[in-house]
This record gives sequence, structure tokens and C-alpha cells, in this order.
Amino acid sequence: MPPYKNLSRKTSDLKVPGFKASGISCGIKKTGKKDLALLLSDVPAKAAGVFTTNKVKAAPVILDIKRLKKGVSRGVIINSGNANACTGKDGYKDSERMASAVEDALGSRKGSIFVCSTGVIGVRLPVEKIERGAHALIKNLSYDGFQEAARAIMTTDAFPKTAALKARINGKTVTLSGFAKGAGMICPNMATMLAFIATDAEIGTAALRRALRSAVDLSFNSILVDNDTSTNDTVLAFANGLSGCGEIKVNSEAFRIFSGLLNEASLKLAHMVVKDGEGATRFIEINITGAASAGEARTAARSIAESLLVKTAFFGGDPNWGRIMAALGKAGIKMKEERVGISFNGVPVVRNGLDTGNEARAAKAIKVKDVSVEVKLNAGRSSAKVWTTDLSYDYVRINSSYRT
Amino acid sequence: MPPYKNLSRKTSDLKVPGFKASGISCGIKKTGKKDLALLLSDVPAKAAGVFTTNKVKAAPVILDIKRLKKGVSRGVIINSGNANACTGKDGYKDSERMASAVEDALGSRKGSIFVCSTGVIGVRLPVEKIERGAHALIKNLSYDGFQEAARAIMTTDAFPKTAALKARINGKTVTLSGFAKGAGMICPNMATMLAFIATDAEIGTAALRRALRSAVDLSFNSILVDNDTSTNDTVLAFANGLSGCGEIKVNSEAFRIFSGLLNEASLKLAHMVVKDGEGATRFIEINITGAASAGEARTAARSIAESLLVKTAFFGGDPNWGRIMAALGKAGIKMKEERVGISFNGVPVVRNGLDTGNEARAAKAIKVKDVSVEVKLNAGRSSAKVWTTDLSYDYVRINSSYRT
Repeated sequence: MPPYKNLSRKTSDLKVPGFKASGISCGIKKTGKKDLALLLSDVPAKAAGVFTTNKVKAAPVILDIKRLKKGVSRGVIINSGNANACTGKDGYKDSERMASAVEDALGSRKGSIFVCSTGVIGVRLPVEKIERGAHALIKNLSYDGFQEAARAIMTTDAFPKTAALKARINGKTVTLSGFAKGAGMICPNMATMLAFIATDAEIGTAALRRALRSAVDLSFNSILVDNDTSTNDTVLAFANGLSGCGEIKVNSEAFRIFSGLLNEASLKLAHMVVKDGEGATRFIEINITGAASAGEARTAARSIAESLLVKTAFFGGDPNWGRIMAALGKAGIKMKEERVGISFNGVPVVRNGLDTGNEARAAKAIKVKDVSVEVKLNAGRSSAKVWTTDLSYDYVRINSSYRT
Repeated sequence: MPPYKNLSRKTSDLKVPGFKASGISCGIKKTGKKDLALLLSDVPAKAAGVFTTNKVKAAPVILDIKRLKKGVSRGVIINSGNANACTGKDGYKDSERMASAVEDALGSRKGSIFVCSTGVIGVRLPVEKIERGAHALIKNLSYDGFQEAARAIMTTDAFPKTAALKARINGKTVTLSGFAKGAGMICPNMATMLAFIATDAEIGTAALRRALRSAVDLSFNSILVDNDTSTNDTVLAFANGLSGCGEIKVNSEAFRIFSGLLNEASLKLAHMVVKDGEGATRFIEINITGAASAGEARTAARSIAESLLVKTAFFGGDPNWGRIMAALGKAGIKMKEERVGISFNGVPVVRNGLDTGNEARAAKAIKVKDVSVEVKLNAGRSSAKVWTTDLSYDYVRINSSYRT
């Protein structure tokens, strides 16, 4: 049980006191769909971010890492349809211009707005379109605008992804809402994932950073098979303090409640990214227990989650546990084959490393949308959960025709 | 240029003096296709092997590793249709019985025959069928039997894979032939690859082992994206010395010629495995130059070769170099984005990290069966080549319906 109580789980009510958002079409996407979003705090907010570990970083990522050092920001402008990655020094200037378009219109200090981009790599950003769109973007800002912003950052996403939570902290209601994009579950290490969190919690930059890092590890990093990320992956959190809950300090009860809120919202968004996995037909939870260490538990879970043979077997509804064993064996973790137990949605298929003879029952049990793979290593006490999808024809279709 | 001269490249003539082979159907495959093979030397041969690094090793792999310590063998019995992996102690006894069936019938010493299995994991081997088939297997042995043996070890393979080479060593003709199976190019880390090499070269066990290890690195391990292998992967080499070429010692000119033969045969077989990649429509060579070290060159090549986004782009004929850059960036190697050059089949698509504007030409150039991706890192002097395929609908079809 989480140490906090949700007052609301309605994602339709995404309002966070003091945060406006908007989403418009500025002409980057040829389809005319929304492609420009803005999230803006009425007052300067404490800001924290987690970025791609890819050595090839998109221009907006380089810019944001620099700007985050101050730990304070008014918000972020986001475009979809173009990643502004591998675009050199000109691309970096384009990102600066994109931020300036908002800063200048608002009369806000240079450096107060972050920038995110997602879409095709290696093509110059049509920054003039963004500059021309800035006026409409700001004009459309609304306390009810989160859903529109969530729509405007979509690329191959089938649906917008939002989450909203409330909790009582020091007698005050604290709200936390987020929106995200990403649908490249099979290979999220290269398909861009963006997530934005807004909260009226009162919290310092260092504490916010710590809470965010931990929330990302348990959510967005647990749907990544490699710890590697795309050129553009970004998670940004803004806390404007307007709840008046008193400063949330690390290691306090308030911090635990706030972290719970942040974890829950991040997990909801991350699961939505998985469920929108390109071509996914099943949502698969890999649950490792009894590992020798937390690191080994994660390694084992990822080795299974990244196996194409495991993913295609689940697509076909085949309870092929041999592929799970092979994935465990290649993970390089401490394990003894004869101690391993595996269940699919509660049906034991392997006991002491051997077949249980439950194939027919297991085949029936996994022909559903949500599949849980439980692996007991019996090598220690650590555990880890990772979420992934199956691999279908549609994944190939979507990714072989992305640009053409 | 290799330091040896091929006297023959005709793969139809696979005969190696003193080696017989056969392939029959013993009833493991429900289709009635051949599923049992034998490779046998008339005289005890020096033997070397390279095995899977997977911690979950199939019973025959555990048996062979033990038997290889002697460094001498008469040959190997191989079945397809069942991997005899994750079958516990009973499975190990089944592998021993499989070897004994041949040893007893030949009156050969216990431990003189190796065993390989490939097929479904986790199901007990129907060893009685193999024992009943042993008589026919031996009766069918022939100096012309390599092609039949190559057929009998196939699983999802579309065609049998063989290679034959000859060279003059110390004035004598030395012959080297091989056969292999494997078609799991997209994820060879778990789809079993088996290869068998027979030669009449005169060479000691230690020298043979060294030559084999190096040949495997440049061939079978360069089509593996992970250095990880299935529960059953095995490469075995047998040298019966009947050429009378005088013992080939390490670091001699004869050793260089012999290694050249072995490398060339291994590379031919490995390329055939790639070309038979499940659902593959294109054969892709990743050629990294200018890396800071040989290890980094391999890491970079593999990062590209294992990217699903790169593979699906090639399937779609999309010269999406952004995905190559992202794969390089996540590899964790020394690189500067602004120094990278990329060409597709000779058409430069990236220069100094930026688009060259050759997209239309590049798109045309890659719509062929053989695609070469040349990456210049300009970070050092090391290079590496790795071979892979695209990712198509058929890969998903084959692997989602393998057992059902």
C-alpha cells in the first residue's frame, strides 16, 4: 500500500493550480494535426529533469540540460513531427529560437523556457513555423489545456496519455498531473519518450530532483529494455509551490507522500506508453523474484523483455517457456537452472527447472490482453518488475513505413 | 588477399578423405523429414569445439564440453526437432544414450562420439527413436553424405548450408568441408546455430582449438548481435590428419594457410545462416571504420545490427540514417557526432554528422538484396564487420507460430 491516499483518480480533471497548457497546429505535420504544445506556470517553478543517456543528444536536450542548472523555470514548449536531432549548430540555434518565441511573447527572462522536440531525425526544424505559431499557442493557454497539449505532442501514439492525482500534505491539497508521449515499446531505446509533470507542491529543486530520479527508475526506466534511450528522451517536472503545503524536505513524511504521488503518476504514464506500444496486442509484466541482487533482478527481467523470440511467442499465444529460460541463461546472472520456477498468469509452467506439463492450461491463460510472467530464481531475495509488449506484424508495418 | 589459394570452391564436392556422413529420418519430426545425422572419421581425429556462453546449457553441450577435454573423437551424432535443453538429469542420460547408440554399433570407445541437438526446448528427447534409427544411420554412411547430413540437421532453415575448400600445405592437398544450420538471424542469441567442420589436415588439438576460436570470432560470432548464444549453439571441428601434410604448428606458414581455409569456410557458412535469416529480405553488412579500438568497432557494429528500428527501416527500403546515428549514440563508444560519416551502398548520406541531401539516391541504392552500411567514426584506426538482415512480417509469422 502506498503511504498516501488518492483523493481523485479522475484523469479527466487534469487541472493543477497555477499551470496552463495549450496545443495547436503550426504546420510541421503535413497532416494538419496538432504539433505544438506549451506548458506554463503562472509563477516561476522549481524544475527537475531526466534525459536520454544516448551520446547523440538532440539540440533541445543539450539546451535543457544547460538551462536546468538554474533549477527554476516557467515551463516548456514542445513540438512533434521533427526531432531536431543530428542537426548540428544550426539545430541548436533553432531550439534557442523556439524558446525565445515564447519568452519574448511573454516578456519572460531568457532561459526560463525549456524545449522538447520529437519526430524525424536529421532534418532541420522549420522554426519559422513555430515562431509564427507562438502567438496562437499562447493565446490558447488554458487551465484546462493539458489534454490539448497531450494531443499536440503525439507522433505514432494512438491515444494521448495523461494522469492526475491529489493528496493531502500538511493539511493542504497537493495536485500532480502529467502528460506523456511514446509508443515505441518494442525498442524504446530509440523511439522518443517525453513526459511532463506539473504540481503545485512546495519543494526545493534538490528534493524534486531526487524524487523524480527515483520515480523515473521505477516507471519509465522499467519499460526501457536497455537503459539506453533515444536522442530526445526527456522527463521534466515543474513544482510551482502554489498549494502552500510548506516546503517538502527529503526524508520527511511529506516527501514520502509526494514521492508516492509522483511514482504513481509516472507509472500510470509509463504503462500507457507500453499499452500504446507500436503494434502491441498484449501488455506483459515480467516479475522477477528471488534474485541475488536488485541489479540482477532488473537484468533478468530486461533480458526476457527484450527477447524477440519471447515477444513473438506471446503474440502467437504460445506458452513457450524454453525461450524464457534461454533469456535468463544469457542474462549472465547468478542462477541455477534446477531452481527456477516460471508461471504464466498464475499457471506454473516450470518447477525446479523442468516442465510441469501444464502447457494446454498455460496456453489458455495467456490468450488475454494482460499477461504476467512470474519468474522465481530462488537465488536470493531481490525482485524487479519490467513491462513490455508482444511483437506483432503491425510493429513491422509501422516502423518500416514511418517516413515514407 | 588471403595467404592461401583455393584449389576448389565447388560446394557440390564436399568429400574429405576419411570422413563419412549420413542423414536419415528416425521419426522425431512429425513431418517425416530427416532428423538424424552422423559425421564420422575413419580414424580418431583431433577435435576442437566452441560452445554457447548461455548459463542454461542443453544436455548435449554439457556432455560435449566434458568429452572434448580428451581432444580426440571419431565424430558427432546430431538430431533436429528436439533441443534436449531444460530436461534435467534425465536429459543428460538421454544424450549419453544417443552417443552410445553409435559407439556400441561401431564398437567404438565410450566417449568417442559427440552429441548435438536442436529444436524445441523443455521436452524430453524421444531417445528410443534415435536408438532404433542408429542402425540405418550407420548403414547410410557415405563419403558423399555431407549434403544429406546438412539436410538432416535443419529446423527452420530454408536450405542446407555447406562449404568446401582445398589448399596446398607442405606440398600436399588439404581439404576442409563444413555444414551448418541456423536461420535465426534476427535473434541468433537464442535460435540455435550448429556448425561442423571436417578436415584431413594434420594438426594438434591445441593448434586446432586456437584456429577454430579465431575463425568463429570472425564469422559465427560476427553474426551474433550479443555475444550471447542459445542453449545449444555448438561449432565442432575434426581433423583426422589423413592428408599427411605434416603437423601444422602454431605461428607457421602452414598454420596461416590452414587458418585461412578455416576462416573462409566458417565465413561462408555464417553468411549462409544470415541469408537464411527468418523472414529476411535483405543481407546487410555493417562496416565500421575509424573506431578507437577493435572492441568499440564491434560494439558499434552490433548496436546498429541489433536495432529493430534500423532493421525495419531497411525492410521498408527507407534510408533512415537517423536510426543509425541513434544506434551509434547508445553504443557507449568514443565518438563525436560531428565527425561521423555514413554511406549506404556507396552513397554518402551523412558527412560530419549532418545530412548530405542524398536521400532519393540512397533510397534507390538500398532497394536491393545486398546492403552495405559504411560508418566512419573518425575516432581511431580500428574496424569491424558484422552481418545481419532486415526485419520483416515473415520473421513475426515464423516465430509466433513455431510450435503451434
